[in-house]
Amino acid sequence: MTQTADTRKRIITTGARQVHSRGFNATGLQNILSEASVPKGSFYFYFKSKDDFGAELIDYFSEFISGIFDRHLGNTALSPLKRLDALFDFYISFFSGNLCTMGCPIGNLSLELSDANELFRHHLNSAINRLIGQLADCLEEAISRGEISSDIDPHDTACFIFQGFEGALLHMKVVKTVSPLESFKRYLVRYLSVSSAKQD
Amino acid sequence: MTQTADTRKRIITTGARQVHSRGFNATGLQNILSEASVPKGSFYFYFKSKDDFGAELIDYFSEFISGIFDRHLGNTALSPLKRLDALFDFYISFFSGNLCTMGCPIGNLSLELSDANELFRHHLNSAINRLIGQLADCLEEAISRGEISSDIDPHDTACFIFQGFEGALLHMKVVKTVSPLESFKRYLVRYLSVSSAKQD
Repeated sequence: MTQTADTRKRIITTGARQVHSRGFNATGLQNILSEASVPKGSFYFYFKSKDDFGAELIDYFSEFISGIFDRHLGNTALSPLKRLDALFDFYISFFSGNLCTMGCPIGNLSLELSDANELFRHHLNSAINRLIGQLADCLEEAISRGEISSDIDPHDTACFIFQGFEGALLHMKVVKTVSPLESFKRYLVRYLSVSSAKQD
Repeated sequence: MTQTADTRKRIITTGARQVHSRGFNATGLQNILSEASVPKGSFYFYFKSKDDFGAELIDYFSEFISGIFDRHLGNTALSPLKRLDALFDFYISFFSGNLCTMGCPIGNLSLELSDANELFRHHLNSAINRLIGQLADCLEEAISRGEISSDIDPHDTACFIFQGFEGALLHMKVVKTVSPLESFKRYLVRYLSVSSAKQD
Protein backbone atom coordinates (compact mmCIF):
# COMPACT_ATOMS: atom_id res chain seq x y z
CA MET A 1 0.00 0.00 0.00
CA THR A 2 1.37 3.46 -0.85
CA GLN A 3 1.82 5.91 1.99
CA THR A 4 -1.07 8.00 0.62
CA ALA A 5 -3.42 5.02 0.52
CA ASP A 6 -2.26 3.99 3.98
CA THR A 7 -2.94 7.46 5.45
CA ARG A 8 -6.31 7.61 3.70
CA LYS A 9 -7.25 4.25 5.20
CA ARG A 10 -6.09 5.37 8.64
CA ILE A 11 -8.34 8.46 8.47
CA ILE A 12 -11.30 6.25 7.55
CA THR A 13 -10.76 3.62 10.26
CA THR A 14 -10.15 6.32 12.90
CA GLY A 15 -13.22 8.24 11.69
CA ALA A 16 -15.32 5.08 11.71
CA ARG A 17 -14.39 4.32 15.31
CA GLN A 18 -15.19 7.86 16.48
CA VAL A 19 -18.43 8.14 14.47
CA HIS A 20 -19.59 4.72 15.68
CA SER A 21 -19.09 5.88 19.29
CA ARG A 22 -20.41 9.41 19.15
CA GLY A 23 -22.38 9.86 15.93
CA PHE A 24 -21.53 11.91 12.86
CA ASN A 25 -22.45 15.39 14.03
CA ALA A 26 -20.78 15.03 17.41
CA THR A 27 -17.47 13.95 15.83
CA GLY A 28 -15.23 16.80 14.71
CA LEU A 29 -13.02 16.29 11.66
CA GLN A 30 -10.30 17.85 13.78
CA ASN A 31 -10.49 15.05 16.37
CA ILE A 32 -10.30 12.37 13.68
CA LEU A 33 -7.26 13.92 11.99
CA SER A 34 -5.55 14.49 15.29
CA GLU A 35 -6.04 10.87 16.43
CA ALA A 36 -4.94 9.65 12.99
CA SER A 37 -1.82 11.90 13.22
CA VAL A 38 -2.66 13.68 9.99
CA PRO A 39 -1.99 17.46 9.66
CA LYS A 40 -5.29 19.28 9.70
CA GLY A 41 -4.56 21.10 6.45
CA SER A 42 -4.22 17.92 4.41
CA PHE A 43 -7.77 16.49 4.66
CA TYR A 44 -8.69 17.69 1.16
CA PHE A 45 -5.64 15.98 -0.25
CA TYR A 46 -7.26 12.66 0.73
CA PHE A 47 -10.98 13.41 0.27
CA LYS A 48 -12.90 15.57 -2.19
CA SER A 49 -15.25 16.90 0.49
CA LYS A 50 -16.70 16.13 3.91
CA ASP A 51 -19.70 14.55 2.15
CA ASP A 52 -17.39 12.33 0.16
CA PHE A 53 -15.68 11.31 3.41
CA GLY A 54 -19.04 10.61 5.12
CA ALA A 55 -20.18 8.43 2.20
CA GLU A 56 -16.92 6.47 2.38
CA LEU A 57 -17.43 5.95 6.11
CA ILE A 58 -20.90 4.51 5.41
CA ASP A 59 -19.43 2.18 2.76
CA TYR A 60 -16.74 1.12 5.23
CA PHE A 61 -19.38 0.22 7.84
CA SER A 62 -21.42 -1.57 5.16
CA GLU A 63 -18.43 -3.69 4.14
CA PHE A 64 -17.62 -4.45 7.77
CA ILE A 65 -21.12 -5.56 8.79
CA SER A 66 -21.72 -7.48 5.57
CA GLY A 67 -18.51 -9.35 6.36
CA ILE A 68 -19.90 -10.36 9.77
CA PHE A 69 -23.22 -11.39 8.19
CA ASP A 70 -21.37 -13.38 5.55
CA ARG A 71 -19.20 -15.19 8.07
CA HIS A 72 -22.29 -16.45 9.89
CA LEU A 73 -24.98 -16.68 7.21
CA GLY A 74 -22.55 -18.22 4.73
CA ASN A 75 -21.38 -20.93 7.13
CA THR A 76 -22.61 -24.01 5.26
CA ALA A 77 -21.56 -26.28 8.14
CA LEU A 78 -24.81 -25.19 9.84
CA SER A 79 -28.43 -25.30 8.67
CA PRO A 80 -29.76 -21.89 7.49
CA LEU A 81 -31.78 -21.26 10.67
CA LYS A 82 -28.83 -22.26 12.86
CA ARG A 83 -26.73 -19.70 10.94
CA LEU A 84 -29.28 -17.02 11.77
CA ASP A 85 -29.08 -18.13 15.42
CA ALA A 86 -25.30 -17.92 15.27
CA LEU A 87 -25.46 -14.37 13.88
CA PHE A 88 -27.70 -13.28 16.76
CA ASP A 89 -25.51 -15.08 19.28
CA PHE A 90 -22.46 -13.29 17.89
CA TYR A 91 -24.11 -9.89 18.44
CA ILE A 92 -25.45 -10.84 21.87
CA SER A 93 -21.94 -11.84 22.92
CA PHE A 94 -20.38 -8.75 21.27
CA PHE A 95 -22.70 -6.28 23.01
CA SER A 96 -22.47 -8.14 26.33
CA GLY A 97 -18.75 -7.45 26.07
CA ASN A 98 -19.01 -3.73 25.30
CA LEU A 99 -21.62 -2.80 27.94
CA CYS A 100 -24.36 -2.44 25.31
CA THR A 101 -22.89 0.69 23.79
CA MET A 102 -22.49 1.93 20.21
CA GLY A 103 -25.07 -0.32 18.51
CA CYS A 104 -25.24 -0.61 14.72
CA PRO A 105 -23.44 2.23 12.90
CA ILE A 106 -25.73 1.87 9.87
CA GLY A 107 -28.81 2.15 12.11
CA ASN A 108 -27.36 5.08 14.06
CA LEU A 109 -26.46 7.01 10.91
CA SER A 110 -29.81 6.17 9.29
CA LEU A 111 -31.66 8.05 12.02
CA GLU A 112 -29.09 10.82 12.23
CA LEU A 113 -28.46 11.59 8.56
CA SER A 114 -31.26 10.30 6.30
CA ASP A 115 -33.25 13.51 6.36
CA ALA A 116 -30.29 15.86 6.08
CA ASN A 117 -28.21 14.47 3.24
CA GLU A 118 -29.39 12.65 0.10
CA LEU A 119 -25.93 11.30 -0.73
CA PHE A 120 -25.65 9.71 2.72
CA ARG A 121 -29.20 8.37 2.47
CA HIS A 122 -28.41 6.60 -0.81
CA HIS A 123 -25.30 5.01 0.67
CA LEU A 124 -27.25 3.96 3.79
CA ASN A 125 -29.99 2.50 1.60
CA SER A 126 -27.45 0.42 -0.34
CA ALA A 127 -25.89 -0.81 2.90
CA ILE A 128 -29.29 -1.84 4.27
CA ASN A 129 -30.34 -3.52 1.02
CA ARG A 130 -27.15 -5.55 1.06
CA LEU A 131 -27.83 -6.82 4.61
CA ILE A 132 -31.46 -7.57 3.77
CA GLY A 133 -30.27 -9.46 0.68
CA GLN A 134 -27.94 -11.60 2.79
CA LEU A 135 -30.75 -12.40 5.25
CA ALA A 136 -33.15 -13.17 2.37
CA ASP A 137 -30.65 -15.59 0.78
CA CYS A 138 -30.39 -17.47 4.06
CA LEU A 139 -34.18 -17.67 4.43
CA GLU A 140 -34.52 -18.82 0.82
CA GLU A 141 -32.14 -21.67 1.58
CA ALA A 142 -34.13 -22.49 4.75
CA ILE A 143 -37.25 -22.76 2.57
CA SER A 144 -35.62 -24.89 -0.09
CA ARG A 145 -34.33 -27.26 2.59
CA GLY A 146 -37.79 -27.46 4.17
CA GLU A 147 -36.60 -25.84 7.41
CA ILE A 148 -39.33 -23.18 7.20
CA SER A 149 -42.56 -22.97 5.23
CA SER A 150 -42.56 -21.81 1.61
CA ASP A 151 -45.44 -19.60 2.74
CA ILE A 152 -42.82 -17.26 4.21
CA ASP A 153 -41.66 -14.52 1.83
CA PRO A 154 -37.83 -14.39 2.11
CA HIS A 155 -37.44 -10.70 1.20
CA ASP A 156 -40.30 -9.39 3.35
CA THR A 157 -39.17 -11.53 6.26
CA ALA A 158 -35.58 -10.35 5.82
CA CYS A 159 -36.82 -6.72 6.03
CA PHE A 160 -38.74 -7.64 9.18
CA ILE A 161 -35.61 -9.23 10.71
CA PHE A 162 -33.46 -6.22 9.83
CA GLN A 163 -36.00 -3.82 11.34
CA GLY A 164 -36.60 -5.92 14.46
CA PHE A 165 -32.89 -6.24 14.98
CA GLU A 166 -32.33 -2.47 14.65
CA GLY A 167 -35.22 -1.80 17.01
CA ALA A 168 -33.82 -4.28 19.53
CA LEU A 169 -30.39 -2.60 19.34
CA LEU A 170 -32.03 0.79 19.92
CA HIS A 171 -33.81 -0.54 23.00
CA MET A 172 -30.62 -2.27 24.19
CA LYS A 173 -28.70 1.02 24.10
CA VAL A 174 -31.27 2.53 26.48
CA VAL A 175 -31.76 -0.37 28.91
CA LYS A 176 -28.06 -1.36 28.79
CA THR A 177 -28.74 -5.09 28.80
CA VAL A 178 -28.82 -7.51 25.85
CA SER A 179 -32.30 -8.75 26.80
CA PRO A 180 -33.98 -6.94 23.84
CA LEU A 181 -31.69 -8.88 21.46
CA GLU A 182 -32.39 -12.16 23.23
CA SER A 183 -36.12 -11.61 23.20
CA PHE A 184 -36.17 -10.59 19.52
CA LYS A 185 -34.32 -13.82 18.72
CA ARG A 186 -36.94 -15.83 20.67
CA TYR A 187 -39.77 -14.01 18.87
CA LEU A 188 -38.23 -14.64 15.49
CA VAL A 189 -37.82 -18.37 16.12
CA ARG A 190 -41.39 -18.51 17.36
CA TYR A 191 -42.71 -16.51 14.41
CA LEU A 192 -40.92 -18.67 11.85
CA SER A 193 -42.00 -21.89 13.56
CA VAL A 194 -45.65 -20.96 14.12
CA SER A 195 -45.95 -19.61 10.58
CA SER A 196 -44.47 -22.87 9.31
CA ALA A 197 -46.59 -25.01 11.64
CA LYS A 198 -49.74 -23.24 10.47
CA GLN A 199 -48.82 -23.96 6.86
CA ASP A 200 -48.17 -27.68 7.41
CA MET B 1 -49.56 31.43 32.64
CA THR B 2 -46.92 33.90 33.81
CA GLN B 3 -44.67 35.46 31.20
CA THR B 4 -41.73 33.45 32.57
CA ALA B 5 -43.61 30.15 32.30
CA ASP B 6 -44.80 31.14 28.84
CA THR B 7 -41.26 31.92 27.62
CA ARG B 8 -39.95 28.71 29.18
CA LYS B 9 -42.60 26.71 27.37
CA ARG B 10 -41.82 28.49 24.08
CA ILE B 11 -38.14 27.54 24.40
CA ILE B 12 -39.12 23.90 24.95
CA THR B 13 -41.60 23.65 22.06
CA THR B 14 -39.18 25.45 19.69
CA GLY B 15 -36.32 23.24 20.88
CA ALA B 16 -38.46 20.11 20.48
CA ARG B 17 -39.29 21.00 16.89
CA GLN B 18 -35.66 21.67 15.97
CA VAL B 19 -34.30 18.61 17.81
CA HIS B 20 -36.94 16.37 16.24
CA SER B 21 -35.87 17.56 12.79
CA ARG B 22 -32.12 17.65 13.15
CA GLY B 23 -31.11 15.71 16.27
CA PHE B 24 -29.73 17.00 19.55
CA ASN B 25 -26.09 17.55 18.63
CA ALA B 26 -26.87 19.25 15.33
CA THR B 27 -29.20 21.77 17.01
CA GLY B 28 -27.47 24.78 18.50
CA LEU B 29 -28.93 26.39 21.60
CA GLN B 30 -28.41 29.66 19.79
CA ASN B 31 -30.78 28.65 16.97
CA ILE B 32 -33.48 27.63 19.43
CA LEU B 33 -33.28 30.87 21.41
CA SER B 34 -33.21 32.95 18.27
CA GLU B 35 -36.31 31.25 16.80
CA ALA B 36 -38.06 31.52 20.19
CA SER B 37 -37.14 35.25 20.32
CA VAL B 38 -35.35 34.88 23.65
CA PRO B 39 -32.13 36.86 24.31
CA LYS B 40 -29.21 34.45 24.25
CA GLY B 41 -27.96 35.53 27.65
CA SER B 42 -31.15 34.53 29.45
CA PHE B 43 -31.13 30.75 28.88
CA TYR B 44 -29.88 30.03 32.42
CA PHE B 45 -32.67 32.11 33.84
CA TYR B 46 -35.08 29.47 32.50
CA PHE B 47 -33.02 26.25 32.80
CA LYS B 48 -30.45 25.09 35.35
CA SER B 49 -28.19 23.62 32.65
CA LYS B 50 -28.14 22.28 29.09
CA ASP B 51 -28.58 18.76 30.53
CA ASP B 52 -31.62 19.91 32.46
CA PHE B 53 -33.02 21.39 29.25
CA GLY B 54 -32.31 18.16 27.30
CA ALA B 55 -34.05 16.05 29.94
CA GLU B 56 -37.08 18.35 29.78
CA LEU B 57 -37.17 18.00 26.00
CA ILE B 58 -37.23 14.20 26.36
CA ASP B 59 -40.08 14.47 28.89
CA TYR B 60 -41.93 16.78 26.51
CA PHE B 61 -41.63 14.22 23.68
CA SER B 62 -42.67 11.45 26.09
CA GLU B 63 -45.81 13.32 27.08
CA PHE B 64 -46.63 14.10 23.46
CA ILE B 65 -46.25 10.54 22.14
CA SER B 66 -47.99 8.99 25.15
CA GLY B 67 -50.89 11.32 24.40
CA ILE B 68 -51.09 9.95 20.84
CA PHE B 69 -50.89 6.37 22.15
CA ASP B 70 -53.57 7.11 24.71
CA ARG B 71 -55.92 8.66 22.15
CA HIS B 72 -55.81 5.48 20.06
CA LEU B 73 -55.16 2.69 22.58
CA GLY B 74 -57.64 4.13 25.05
CA ASN B 75 -60.46 4.41 22.50
CA THR B 76 -62.94 1.97 24.02
CA ALA B 77 -65.27 2.35 21.02
CA LEU B 78 -62.94 -0.12 19.25
CA SER B 79 -61.74 -3.60 20.19
CA PRO B 80 -58.17 -3.65 21.58
CA LEU B 81 -56.63 -5.03 18.35
CA LYS B 82 -58.54 -2.49 16.26
CA ARG B 83 -57.08 0.25 18.49
CA LEU B 84 -53.59 -1.04 17.75
CA ASP B 85 -54.47 -0.96 14.05
CA ALA B 86 -55.74 2.60 14.42
CA LEU B 87 -52.47 3.66 16.09
CA PHE B 88 -50.45 2.24 13.20
CA ASP B 89 -52.81 3.81 10.67
CA PHE B 90 -52.38 7.18 12.36
CA TYR B 91 -48.58 6.96 12.01
CA ILE B 92 -48.75 5.65 8.44
CA SER B 93 -50.94 8.61 7.52
CA PHE B 94 -48.79 11.08 9.51
CA PHE B 95 -45.53 10.00 7.85
CA SER B 96 -47.15 9.79 4.42
CA GLY B 97 -47.92 13.47 4.93
CA ASN B 98 -44.44 14.56 6.00
CA LEU B 99 -42.43 12.71 3.32
CA CYS B 100 -41.21 10.08 5.80
CA THR B 101 -38.97 12.49 7.65
CA MET B 102 -38.18 13.03 11.34
CA GLY B 103 -39.38 9.66 12.70
CA CYS B 104 -39.79 9.08 16.43
CA PRO B 105 -37.95 11.64 18.60
CA ILE B 106 -37.59 9.13 21.45
CA GLY B 107 -36.04 6.58 19.07
CA ASN B 108 -33.77 9.18 17.46
CA LEU B 109 -32.52 10.46 20.81
CA SER B 110 -32.11 6.91 22.16
CA LEU B 111 -29.52 6.14 19.49
CA GLU B 112 -27.92 9.57 19.66
CA LEU B 113 -27.66 10.13 23.40
CA SER B 114 -27.91 6.87 25.39
CA ASP B 115 -24.18 6.23 25.48
CA ALA B 116 -23.17 9.82 26.12
CA ASN B 117 -25.39 10.98 28.95
CA GLU B 118 -26.81 8.94 31.85
CA LEU B 119 -29.42 11.56 32.76
CA PHE B 120 -30.79 11.53 29.21
CA ARG B 121 -30.69 7.72 29.15
CA HIS B 122 -32.81 7.51 32.31
CA HIS B 123 -35.38 9.92 30.89
CA LEU B 124 -35.44 7.99 27.58
CA ASN B 125 -35.86 4.73 29.46
CA SER B 126 -38.86 6.14 31.39
CA ALA B 127 -40.40 7.40 28.14
CA ILE B 128 -39.99 3.98 26.49
CA ASN B 129 -41.33 2.11 29.53
CA ARG B 130 -44.40 4.30 29.51
CA LEU B 131 -45.13 3.51 25.83
CA ILE B 132 -44.48 -0.20 26.39
CA GLY B 133 -46.86 -0.09 29.36
CA GLN B 134 -49.60 1.47 27.22
CA LEU B 135 -49.15 -1.21 24.55
CA ALA B 136 -49.11 -3.97 27.21
CA ASP B 137 -52.38 -2.70 28.74
CA CYS B 138 -54.03 -2.87 25.33
CA LEU B 139 -52.76 -6.42 24.73
CA GLU B 140 -53.90 -7.45 28.18
CA GLU B 141 -57.38 -6.26 27.33
CA ALA B 142 -57.21 -8.14 24.01
CA ILE B 143 -56.40 -11.32 25.96
CA SER B 144 -59.13 -10.81 28.53
CA ARG B 145 -61.66 -10.28 25.73
CA GLY B 146 -60.44 -13.43 23.96
CA GLU B 147 -59.23 -11.44 20.94
CA ILE B 148 -55.75 -12.99 21.21
CA SER B 149 -54.44 -16.07 23.00
CA SER B 150 -53.56 -15.95 26.71
CA ASP B 151 -50.37 -17.70 25.60
CA ILE B 152 -49.13 -14.26 24.48
CA ASP B 153 -47.18 -12.37 27.15
CA PRO B 154 -48.48 -8.76 27.10
CA HIS B 155 -45.27 -7.10 28.34
CA ASP B 156 -42.85 -9.09 26.15
CA THR B 157 -45.09 -8.59 23.14
CA ALA B 158 -45.39 -4.87 23.88
CA CYS B 159 -41.56 -4.65 23.90
CA PHE B 160 -41.50 -6.49 20.58
CA ILE B 161 -44.06 -4.07 19.10
CA PHE B 162 -42.15 -1.03 20.35
CA GLN B 163 -38.87 -2.34 18.91
CA GLY B 164 -40.41 -3.43 15.61
CA PHE B 165 -42.09 -0.06 15.26
CA GLU B 166 -38.84 1.83 15.95
CA GLY B 167 -36.97 -0.41 13.48
CA ALA B 168 -39.66 0.18 10.86
CA LEU B 169 -39.42 3.97 11.37
CA LEU B 170 -35.63 3.77 10.99
CA HIS B 171 -36.01 1.88 7.71
CA MET B 172 -38.74 4.28 6.57
CA LYS B 173 -36.43 7.29 7.03
CA VAL B 174 -33.94 5.68 4.65
CA VAL B 175 -36.29 4.35 1.97
CA LYS B 176 -38.61 7.39 2.20
CA THR B 177 -41.81 5.35 1.85
CA VAL B 178 -44.18 4.12 4.58
CA SER B 179 -43.96 0.53 3.34
CA PRO B 180 -41.82 -0.60 6.33
CA LEU B 181 -44.61 0.59 8.67
CA GLU B 182 -47.27 -1.13 6.57
CA SER B 183 -45.35 -4.37 6.45
CA PHE B 184 -44.61 -4.33 10.19
CA LYS B 185 -48.33 -3.91 10.81
CA ARG B 186 -49.06 -6.92 8.57
CA TYR B 187 -46.43 -9.00 10.37
CA LEU B 188 -47.80 -8.10 13.74
CA VAL B 189 -51.36 -9.06 12.83
CA ARG B 190 -50.06 -12.31 11.39
CA TYR B 191 -47.89 -13.02 14.42
CA LEU B 192 -50.71 -12.39 16.88
CA SER B 193 -53.18 -14.44 14.85
CA VAL B 194 -50.92 -17.42 14.17
CA SER B 195 -49.76 -17.48 17.78
CA SER B 196 -53.38 -17.44 18.87
CA ALA B 197 -54.41 -20.02 16.25
CA LYS B 198 -51.67 -22.37 17.42
CA GLN B 199 -52.89 -22.07 20.99
CA ASP B 200 -56.53 -22.79 20.18
